[in-house]
Amino acid sequence: MPVEHTVKEFEQELNRLNEIIAQMGALAETQLIDSLRAITDRDTELAMQVVKNDAKVDALESEIDDLTLQELALRQPVAVDLRRVVGALRASTDLERISDYATNIAKRAVPLNQMTPAGPIHGIHRMGGTVLNMVEDVLEAYGQGDAERAIEVWSRDEEVDEIYSSLFREILTYMIEDPRTITACTHLLFIAKNIERIGDHATNIAETIYFLVKGERLRGLRPKGDDASFAVVDVPRRD
Amino acid sequence: MPVEHTVKEFEQELNRLNEIIAQMGALAETQLIDSLRAITDRDTELAMQVVKNDAKVDALESEIDDLTLQELALRQPVAVDLRRVVGALRASTDLERISDYATNIAKRAVPLNQMTPAGPIHGIHRMGGTVLNMVEDVLEAYGQGDAERAIEVWSRDEEVDEIYSSLFREILTYMIEDPRTITACTHLLFIAKNIERIGDHATNIAETIYFLVKGERLRGLRPKGDDASFAVVDVPRRD
Repeated sequence: MPVEHTVKEFEQELNRLNEIIAQMGALAETQLIDSLRAITDRDTELAMQVVKNDAKVDALESEIDDLTLQELALRQPVAVDLRRVVGALRASTDLERISDYATNIAKRAVPLNQMTPAGPIHGIHRMGGTVLNMVEDVLEAYGQGDAERAIEVWSRDEEVDEIYSSLFREILTYMIEDPRTITACTHLLFIAKNIERIGDHATNIAETIYFLVKGERLRGLRPKGDDASFAVVDVPRRD
Repeated sequence: MPVEHTVKEFEQELNRLNEIIAQMGALAETQLIDSLRAITDRDTELAMQVVKNDAKVDALESEIDDLTLQELALRQPVAVDLRRVVGALRASTDLERISDYATNIAKRAVPLNQMTPAGPIHGIHRMGGTVLNMVEDVLEAYGQGDAERAIEVWSRDEEVDEIYSSLFREILTYMIEDPRTITACTHLLFIAKNIERIGDHATNIAETIYFLVKGERLRGLRPKGDDASFAVVDVPRRD
């Protein structure tokens, strides 16, 4: 049924999808970088910028939604083409969530910057850097359709979960030792959780890449090192 | 191209999708009910049951993934049929997340039940009830393809966000007043956040129903009353 002309048009549409994903990815990455910087540099203006920029990512997600639906309806793709369309739809959902979590981090920078600096900001910074690397690498893997690299990124989620669990305990201990830091540390707890969730979404994108390239699922094996939900912190003694 | 036989088969497949969504919905709802009960009744055994049952919901999501891909590839649906397939795909993602959040609540019940009861458990219970009603109603609306009811559920998200913001402040105040409750209250903060996120996913499903029935988007207008990220709690005085 498809004539050469149609095939070419469809190829252009698929490329357009990839372009929007790359654009969304770059924006989401910047959102994460800026939200982390807003915390470490105590830059409230930058934080407000992140909150504002979230709408741009949302707009691109809507564009992907429309485009994929249109392609499914008009081109009725199969096999790898279908996976490319569905893959773009999935990846865009994850990128929108990444920007959303970055926005949440930025929102928390606003009250944090009004308080005395407290708690393990260094731990947040380090965890943020680890997750940022995951996001960068998974976006490159997506652009290049690199399933091996996707697996590599995917396997790093466990490390993030472990950093998160340890950071969670550290922040809690901080609060217990100095209750004046409770409000600030509560924001840090949620920031740590947001960063951990961004790592999850980078991992989702890695799964999407694998599915897109290989046509099968990279699941079930997902490593899980996060046990912060089970945390019972003993009140530390510092005599 | 489609002969009567094919149309009938496809209709059966679409019904099968709806059945799985209904099954997933019922399971996710039970997960939420049980996780809340595990908190209020301090029932650790029930909490562990919720953690275990999450795998069932995950398995149904995978089934929906496979089925929708197969339908897109083989049936190449258009218009309302396409929306039904894509709608099921979206709804299943939200239901999986709802069960995931319920599981997280249940995991936190385990350490909580080992501690002295602390903090505004009543507030958690009340917020949980509100969100549970949203989940119940949105699942009924999905089953009946009821766009009006979907809008009604969708409009309730603002109320949940407001309850969450107020509960967040209440828990924080509690911690500040009695630092011995910090660990317990931290779990309550995350539980409140998890319930709020479940409300978001019920709202997403409402948007999916609207899109499925009307073929256009119910967005942009989404009410937002959650400003807990901006919270700066003043240390309360209770003299």
